[in-house]
Amino acid sequence: LRVDKEVDYAQYFCTYAFLYHQKEMLSDRVRMDAYFHSIFSNTHHFLGKTVLDVGTGSGILAIWSAKAGARKVYAVEATKMSEHARALVRANNLETVVEVIEGSMEDVSLPEKVDVIISEWMGYFLLRESMFDSVICARDRWLKPTGVMYPSHARMWVAPIRSGLGDQKKNDYEGSMDDWHSFMDETKTYYGVDMSVLTKPFSEEQKKYYLQTSLWNNLHPHQVIGTAAIVKEIDCLTATVADILEVRSTFSSLITVENTRLCGFGGWFDVHFRGRREDPAAKEIELTTAPSIENSTHWGQQVFLLHPPVRVSVEDALDVSFSMNRSKENHRLMEVEFGCDIKQCSGKLLPSFRNKFYLE
Amino acid sequence: LRVDKEVDYAQYFCTYAFLYHQKEMLSDRVRMDAYFHSIFSNTHHFLGKTVLDVGTGSGILAIWSAKAGARKVYAVEATKMSEHARALVRANNLETVVEVIEGSMEDVSLPEKVDVIISEWMGYFLLRESMFDSVICARDRWLKPTGVMYPSHARMWVAPIRSGLGDQKKNDYEGSMDDWHSFMDETKTYYGVDMSVLTKPFSEEQKKYYLQTSLWNNLHPHQVIGTAAIVKEIDCLTATVADILEVRSTFSSLITVENTRLCGFGGWFDVHFRGRREDPAAKEIELTTAPSIENSTHWGQQVFLLHPPVRVSVEDALDVSFSMNRSKENHRLMEVEFGCDIKQCSGKLLPSFRNKFYLE
Ligand SMILES: Nc1ncnc2c1ncn2[C@@H]1O[C@H](CSCC[C@H](N)C(=O)O)[C@@H](O)[C@H]1O
Ligand SMILES: Nc1ncnc2c1ncn2[C@@H]1O[C@H](CSCC[C@H](N)C(=O)O)[C@@H](O)[C@H]1O
Repeated sequence: LRVDKEVDYAQYFCTYAFLYHQKEMLSDRVRMDAYFHSIFSNTHHFLGKTVLDVGTGSGILAIWSAKAGARKVYAVEATKMSEHARALVRANNLETVVEVIEGSMEDVSLPEKVDVIISEWMGYFLLRESMFDSVICARDRWLKPTGVMYPSHARMWVAPIRSGLGDQKKNDYEGSMDDWHSFMDETKTYYGVDMSVLTKPFSEEQKKYYLQTSLWNNLHPHQVIGTAAIVKEIDCLTATVADILEVRSTFSSLITVENTRLCGFGGWFDVHFRGRREDPAAKEIELTTAPSIENSTHWGQQVFLLHPPVRVSVEDALDVSFSMNRSKENHRLMEVEFGCDIKQCSGKLLPSFRNKFYLE
Repeated sequence: LRVDKEVDYAQYFCTYAFLYHQKEMLSDRVRMDAYFHSIFSNTHHFLGKTVLDVGTGSGILAIWSAKAGARKVYAVEATKMSEHARALVRANNLETVVEVIEGSMEDVSLPEKVDVIISEWMGYFLLRESMFDSVICARDRWLKPTGVMYPSHARMWVAPIRSGLGDQKKNDYEGSMDDWHSFMDETKTYYGVDMSVLTKPFSEEQKKYYLQTSLWNNLHPHQVIGTAAIVKEIDCLTATVADILEVRSTFSSLITVENTRLCGFGGWFDVHFRGRREDPAAKEIELTTAPSIENSTHWGQQVFLLHPPVRVSVEDALDVSFSMNRSKENHRLMEVEFGCDIKQCSGKLLPSFRNKFYLE
């Protein structure tokens, strides 16, 4: 059952059509500052240039590009948000520079190639939503050979974490199964039907929901209990869809905290605005979604929790194999696998484990 | 933008594929008791007969029909829930009687016509989900001329109510607009973009969300402050899709409570199991979702709230015009309108009002 294009569009774009949702992104100061400074610290990339904003939403990046001196900005947006973007452009007196085009990037046609492609395409844990596919498509069709990508680079990070969320989810799961058992008793007593054959599928459904689905979380840096590793690096100028269909990595991580619990893994990303090798940024800007006290983002981190957690201590060494694939039912959602060997600093090997998660 | 069939199916059926959701319905004792007794108090309708269960879900109604002595039960279910239904049928040793068929009712073919169509097709405020369309389609194709519908009749009710929910929603709306204004200030100060042109569309979006969308609520009977009226009666044996596309009614309601606030209207439904005129039920069963202390259902009531409420008192007379239509974007959702004239018992007329709501 592969989702067809119409179904995908109906499901994917619906939230972006709400100003409420655009406002959430526009209120993310870390995100806004990074894009703002990437543009206004590097106006040489924009001055007199043509720009394409892939998924312009409210139009904010297109408007900044125009304010930075772009000659022409094409602002493409699939949803009716395009009408609000157009109004915002007009209210800011930029309608001669910014042209808002309603349509999906894959379908629209531009009158010329562009010098810059700017886009805020990043989903949870970078690749959820698979919107970078649309940016690649835009780049291959509309970016000049000398063109620049904003952002230019992206990376995915993984680190071991501790968290109380897993205990909570375990409780929720157990509560739900307790409920199920009284439900089964009642159904048998009052209605004469034995539901026990559904206990296994019900518990699998609930396990998937409570225990095997990754969670949005704003981790405190103290919850990161070992060294973080990069599991993917993307050069936005050259990456192909094939390059991002699957992410696969093995890495080591050293536990850095005394006597704690390995409760799972946290995943996040960063992107950089470096311009192009032959045409570099005057000032490189970084947007990171790493655990942070002051600079947290609406992306937070994705957490992948182990049941049960494993006791670890400082200097214990994890050998982790990570993989992420698109879900077969919906290419915008992901399935993630963590395999892990733990070697205690004493040299003792703990039983290895392998866990599968749904990033929904 | 009319939702096409694939999109509709993807959106509509997704929740029903979860045992968790089926369990919620199976745990509704009022619902379960009504169907259970409608079958087992009227086994003459089932003994040796052929039955079609439209949307069998977990298979419960098909299983009861078989236990009541049906010769053959066709249990049609559009989602993968059909596999669980099949397992449940087998575990209850009814696989020779109950045949589970996976497919949408509109598409499947049965080997014979049936004596009984049973279905639990009722959505919020009866018609949300528009599933009765599928029952009508099944009836016109597969019910014998002498056949019986379970349930046989359905009614929609409306009554004036008082509620604190409206104040809450008003607060939420105002909080959201306060947020918007500081957001606008920040966006201007930090990022040089004037968002004021979006204030109106944002406030409309938020108004729709907080103030014009009907809410699920479990009303206490004391919250009903006037006489309830029937706005629609459906004979399940004869109703056509045209009959239920639109519901239109004018009715009067007398306020029955001293010095109170008319905060809006509550809507609910009941269905009856009466068999067929020529082949009546031995015992008539009623399933009502009216406000109740002891017998509340998972349907609750839909509440349609006024902003601001209107002060009313005992003997004040409301002249209400009610209409409900399917939403153009999604035929399973509804748009509801209430017009109201209020004549105080003193004879004084209050300003009349007219409000539109989305039943999402
Ligand atoms: N293939 C595609 N074609 C056009 N728009 C797309 C698209 N895929 C995603 N989008 C749009 O891209 C936007 C991503 S959110 C970012 C919005 C805006 N650029 C900002 O930074 O605030 C959404 O509005 C979404 O509807
Ligand atoms: N057109 C259609 N064809 C087949 N199944 C349908 C349908 N429209 C709705 N359904 C199914 O009908 C069920 C309604 S919920 C009721 C389930 C079950 N009969 C019970 O009483 O517990 C859902 O499982 C839904 O997937």
